[in-house]
Order: sequence, then C-alpha cells, then structure tokens
Amino acid sequence: MTAHDVAGAVTACGEAAKAGAASLAAAPDEVIDQALTAMAALLPQRADAVLAANAEDVAAGEAAGLGRGVLDRLRLDQPRVFEMARQIGLLAQVPFPPGEEHVRDLPGGLVLAQRRVPVGVIGANYEARPNVTVDVASQLLKSRNAGVLRTGGAALESAAALFDQVIVPAVAAAGLDSRALQLVRTPDRAAAAELVRRPGLIPLVILRGSGQTTRELAAQAAAHGVRTLAHADGGGVLYLDRAADPALSSHIIAASVDRLGVCNRLNLLLIHSATWEPLLAVARDALEAAGVALSLPPHDHPLGHEWALDAGREATVTVAPAGGPADAARIANEQTPGLAAGIVTADAGAAGAFLATCTGTGAFWNATTRLLDGFKLLGIPETGINVDHVPGPRGPVTFRDLSLRQYVVRPAG
Amino acid sequence: MTAHDVAGAVTACGEAAKAGAASLAAAPDEVIDQALTAMAALLPQRADAVLAANAEDVAAGEAAGLGRGVLDRLRLDQPRVFEMARQIGLLAQVPFPPGEEHVRDLPGGLVLAQRRVPVGVIGANYEARPNVTVDVASQLLKSRNAGVLRTGGAALESAAALFDQVIVPAVAAAGLDSRALQLVRTPDRAAAAELVRRPGLIPLVILRGSGQTTRELAAQAAAHGVRTLAHADGGGVLYLDRAADPALSSHIIAASVDRLGVCNRLNLLLIHSATWEPLLAVARDALEAAGVALSLPPHDHPLGHEWALDAGREATVTVAPAGGPADAARIANEQTPGLAAGIVTADAGAAGAFLATCTGTGAFWNATTRLLDGFKLLGIPETGINVDHVPGPRGPVTFRDLSLRQYVVRPAG
Repeated sequence: MTAHDVAGAVTACGEAAKAGAASLAAAPDEVIDQALTAMAALLPQRADAVLAANAEDVAAGEAAGLGRGVLDRLRLDQPRVFEMARQIGLLAQVPFPPGEEHVRDLPGGLVLAQRRVPVGVIGANYEARPNVTVDVASQLLKSRNAGVLRTGGAALESAAALFDQVIVPAVAAAGLDSRALQLVRTPDRAAAAELVRRPGLIPLVILRGSGQTTRELAAQAAAHGVRTLAHADGGGVLYLDRAADPALSSHIIAASVDRLGVCNRLNLLLIHSATWEPLLAVARDALEAAGVALSLPPHDHPLGHEWALDAGREATVTVAPAGGPADAARIANEQTPGLAAGIVTADAGAAGAFLATCTGTGAFWNATTRLLDGFKLLGIPETGINVDHVPGPRGPVTFRDLSLRQYVVRPAG
Repeated sequence: MTAHDVAGAVTACGEAAKAGAASLAAAPDEVIDQALTAMAALLPQRADAVLAANAEDVAAGEAAGLGRGVLDRLRLDQPRVFEMARQIGLLAQVPFPPGEEHVRDLPGGLVLAQRRVPVGVIGANYEARPNVTVDVASQLLKSRNAGVLRTGGAALESAAALFDQVIVPAVAAAGLDSRALQLVRTPDRAAAAELVRRPGLIPLVILRGSGQTTRELAAQAAAHGVRTLAHADGGGVLYLDRAADPALSSHIIAASVDRLGVCNRLNLLLIHSATWEPLLAVARDALEAAGVALSLPPHDHPLGHEWALDAGREATVTVAPAGGPADAARIANEQTPGLAAGIVTADAGAAGAFLATCTGTGAFWNATTRLLDGFKLLGIPETGINVDHVPGPRGPVTFRDLSLRQYVVRPAG
C-alpha cells in the first residue's frame, strides 16, 4: 500500500464508523447488552474460523522470526477464546451509569440536567494481541461509541476473523448499524500515525501498551489536536516508612512483582533513611525470593527508569532512600510518570502525609500498586490507563469515562 | 525584552507558582475562603491605588489609539471595583464539592475512594481586561490551584496593582504561600506563546476569549502537549420547528441577541422548511426590532460563520432552512463548533429528536443559548467555555472542574 492508500483506508474506516455512530448513540441499554451477549455467544461458535485465521498469523510470525513472548501473546486457543467470551459476558452485565442527572431548576420554568453523550468515533491502536480486538470493541460498544481499531500487522488475520465472524454479526444481530466498528485492514505501520491525525473525524484515540511507540504516537496526536488516553511510561513506587511492619512490607513487595512486564508493578522502592539497613534487608529477601535484582545507589540510571520496558532487565527494582513520607511522595511525583505510589506504615500520620502529597493516579496505603487496574479497583475492564495531569479520565479508564458532558435545558414538568 | 528574557520570565513565574502550590493544595476549605474574603475586602480598600494604575493604562491606551471598545473594557471605576469585590465574595460562599468519595470495599480489608487533587499550576491568558485578573485568580484559588496569569500589555499596570495591592496580600493574610499566584510582568505578546509550551510545569492553560489569537494559542499548546480549556469559535444555533409558537419564537430570538459580542448569542437561525415563510416573518420582525440584519440564502459565507468575531458586522444572524429537528441538530453539530443549540417547539417528540441528536455542549428546548454560561446554568462563575469533543470539562468550566481524579486505597476502618 502507498502512504496515500493507507491514509485513504483510515479515512474510509473513520467515515464508515461515523455513519454507524448514530445507531449506537440512540440504542437503549438492553440493545447494547444484547449485542455484547451475542458477541460472547458467537465467539465459541465461530472459534474454528477464528483459530484457523490465528494459525495463519502465528505461522507467518514464526516464519518472520518473531520472539517467543510476541508469539505467545499472538497465539489463540480454545481456552483463550472461551475466556474472551466470558469477559464480554461479564461486561454485558455491568450496569450503565445514569445517562442524565438533574442539576437544578432555572428561572422561567426551565430545568437543567447534565447528560452524557458519546464521543462519536474513538480510535484504538494496540499491539498484535488478538484478544484486545474484542476487548476494545466490546468496551467501545458498551460506551455507545463507534470506533476504528488498528492492530499490529502480525495479528491482522486474527483481528479480521474476529470482526467478520463475531463483532460485525453480533452488532448486526442486535439491530445496530454494524458499520460503527471498523478494523483498519492493512499491516502497514503508517496506519497508526494516520489514526492520530484526524481530529474532526476521530477526536480521541486510545493507545494501548507503553514504551516508545506509544510515546511517539501520543506526541503526534497532540501535534494534530487529537486527544489520547495513554501511558507511554509507568512504574509503581512503594515507600517503606520507618514505621513499616517488616512482614507486611515483605508481603506487599512480593505481591508487587508477581508480574514484571506490566506498568503497575513495583519499579522504584523507597526506604526511610532512618531505617535503611533493616528494611533494605527485608526488601532484599523479598525481591531475591522473587528472582528480582536490586539496583542500589549510586544509580547509573534515572530514579524512575522503567524496568518493565528494559528488555532483558525486567527483573530489577530500583531501591533508594527517602527522608520521610512527604519526601517519598515528592520523589514519586517528580521522578516518575505518576502512575501509582504506595506507603507501608503502621503510622496513620505518616500515611496521611504521604497520601496528601501524592499527585499520581493512585495513592495507596498498605496495598500494592498492582491494584491500579480497572478490574481490580472498579470491578470492570479498563480500556487502558491514562496518566495525563489534566482534568478528565485519569488512571484506569473504563467505558464509563468515554462520554462527553452536555448540559440540557428543558421546560419543567 | 528579548525572546530569551520573556521565556525566562514565564519559567520563573511557573516555578514560583509551583513552589507555592503545595500550600494551596493542603489548605482547609475555610482558609481558601478566608483568602477570597480578604480579596473581596481589600479591593475597595485599595481602590485608589488600583484606579491610579488603571488610569495610567487607559492614558497609554488612548495615546496608542486603542479602539473605544477596548478602552471601555480596560477602564475601571469605583462601581466596577465594587462589583468585582461582590463577585469574589459570592465565590467565597459557594460550597466546595466533596474532596473524596467512597467507591467500594476491596478484598484484603482495603477500601477504595476517589479523590480530587489539584492540577498544580494552571496558566491563564486573557485580553486586556483588568477584572479578569481577579476573576481568574479567585477561581484558581477556589480550586486550590497555583497559577500563572498573562494579560494583554495594555492592562499590565492595572493587573500588577491588583496583584500587589489585593491578590498577594489576601493570599498571604490567610496564611497561604503567596508565590502560588503569579502575573507575567511583561507586555510582550510572546509571553502568551511561552505560557503554552511547558507541559511539565504548566500542563493546563485557560484561554479566555475567542477568535484567531485563541485558535493559534490552542494549536501551539496542542503541539507542545499542553491541554487548553478554550473555545476559539462559538455561536448559538436556534431552530424554529414547524410546531414553534410564534410569540415564544420571537421572545427567544430577542433574548438571544441582547448582546452581540458574546459567543453564546444567536448566530445561526434554522427554520423548518415546511413553515419557512411564516416563521421567517416572525424572525425578521424580532431581529429587525433588535437592530440585527438577516443573512438569507444563498449565503456567501459558511453556515457557521461567527458574526460576533466579524468586526463591524456583529449585528447579523444567518438564517437557513432545516428539514426537521434531527436535520437541524445535525447542521448544528456539523456546521458549528458545537457550543449550544436550541429548538423552539410545542411538539415534545420533535424536541426529543432534536435533543437526542445534538452533540454540542448545550442542548436546549424553548430556551435561549445565552443560558450557556457558568453563572446562569450553575450559579457559579466560569473560567471559560470549553468545546473539545473529548471527555473532561466541557461547556462552561468552573472551579469544580479544575482537579485531577485520583484513586486512593487504604486499610478499612
């Protein structure tokens, strides 16, 4: 495809999605949930076709020499398909937030309400993971937004099969306009950049995953006036206060490094300088038991260096001293992207000082930053995590966040 | 000042504001309101000094040949100073939204809350109107945000006097860190551009006023990853449905053109094509009685052309046919920036179709779009109106909107 063709393909998807958007916006709650339920039912029914398409992607990926981790995330099997169906079924059961709320009576016999209206068309870019296709499509549907999805070329056959066998038929079966959800059907990487440069057509783009690609796409989107929900960088911070219980510290550290490739894992461990030696011993035992190395001062990297993105060195945690709870919170605020920070302490005053100073999307006391996740915190799936320091959806973003505020004035009664 | 000096001045303001931000963030509600009350009390006490500085600005403006409208907005007098004080006093009495709300219990004896934390440092750029200096400063204070204010050079002496005589002493009198609110003390226009290119220091900038300057600053901000709250373009839309009562139509038209330089005035009047002639006669009478000309089809300008920004032709309203309520809403959605649109009709079904299709920040039935204003809708002053089609503060933005969402996890009890 030429650059012109790729641009045309993204525009065509955006326009088709826009044409279908009104159908979703007007749909009653139960129709939206019918479409989700149909999606959950079709997934196992159409598993053979989906798995056949996925086998092509995997074979092509192997031939192209993709890494084992990438191939593992790319590969679908019967249990994974059933798990995808189960999660969509759960989403169908989540109640909708109130669409409209009374604000106050106005002079002249009028009443003011605040209402949620869909954004319209939302873009989503994600790496070559087939399950994310239905994950994002189902959440856009639940939020009544049309969407343009773009996945890594390695998963394109799988994503196309999921669209053709599951997503489009499910949306149509509920009587909705199936143009609303579109897949960009080119493996060309340029499609990602095209997705973030159409503010009039696609004003908001969800960027899944972190690292350099997300960072660059977010910058390009900003330059074109397109808003993104993303976190290019992450990393949890844990501060062991001078009043930290050693056993609880050890437990929370272990729970914070159960997975090492995720953004909310423990990345920077701060220890009160007055209790540095004993708590460092506790931390060392807990980290080494989990097979994680400590990067101790003096560091040859920035304090916030994100190990999850450092291929081959994921099993590392930076350890550094802090002067107290407020100092620890300030380090988290200033040296990291502000995803989540926690304190371990038995001292309520210290916890209060820490929580009062934290400005990140999550501030935790005696809890692991691994909780910073839509499902764990709110019981509903997230479209991703956003770390912008501006008003609006922040932290785990769920379907409830994907709407616009609108004021409605009507005659009373 | 050289470009380097201007950049340095803005950075110095940003850093000073940041240094003072923690004091505001930690302040109890009553201390914030004490500072506002002190501001309201100091304004009349220091009126002489403020008016003397303002007289210098006005004299310089007259010597520079500024237009009458600009000079009128620049000029302060005793009644205007008292009105500014009265409004700050009202703001001090507005209750604060809850700082924290319980969300749900989590496993492991933990509880989840959702909390509002200040943004930190917010920028504000506005034209040479001295009253906006205290208006913006007081709203930033009420939202617990530090701020960097930049006004047009013509009002700089007035703004500096308001800072030195009123704002800074009031903040200090309440025991808060008066570095939190800063004025960029250079008349150089380049300061506005500098204000929107420091995402790490000033992540959010309020752009007051509309037109080309705002449009350019918003684009520059976006390119630098700075979020703005702004509406470069506006214009209210009113649709007279086939079931519109003529007397009510006439009344709402008149109420919609009571001021012609504002963004929420009637700009585009749509009339059901089936009742075009009789309702056009009603509209013509109402508009001509208000001294407003009709721009009838065929138009030599885009349907959404904003007359408020068209110097010398402000007293014009575009009139065009629409095929029905949904068509009228679509025209408002697609041909205007989506500020506010209203329908006049006695037919609840038509009103429903119109309101269901509108995607602007305000959707009104039998009411004027002039209501799209923080004070008229919500009873509190607005920092401005934002028309972004993305989640977050939208429509009239008030101090309540100027915060970040943060999730807090703590041990229960």
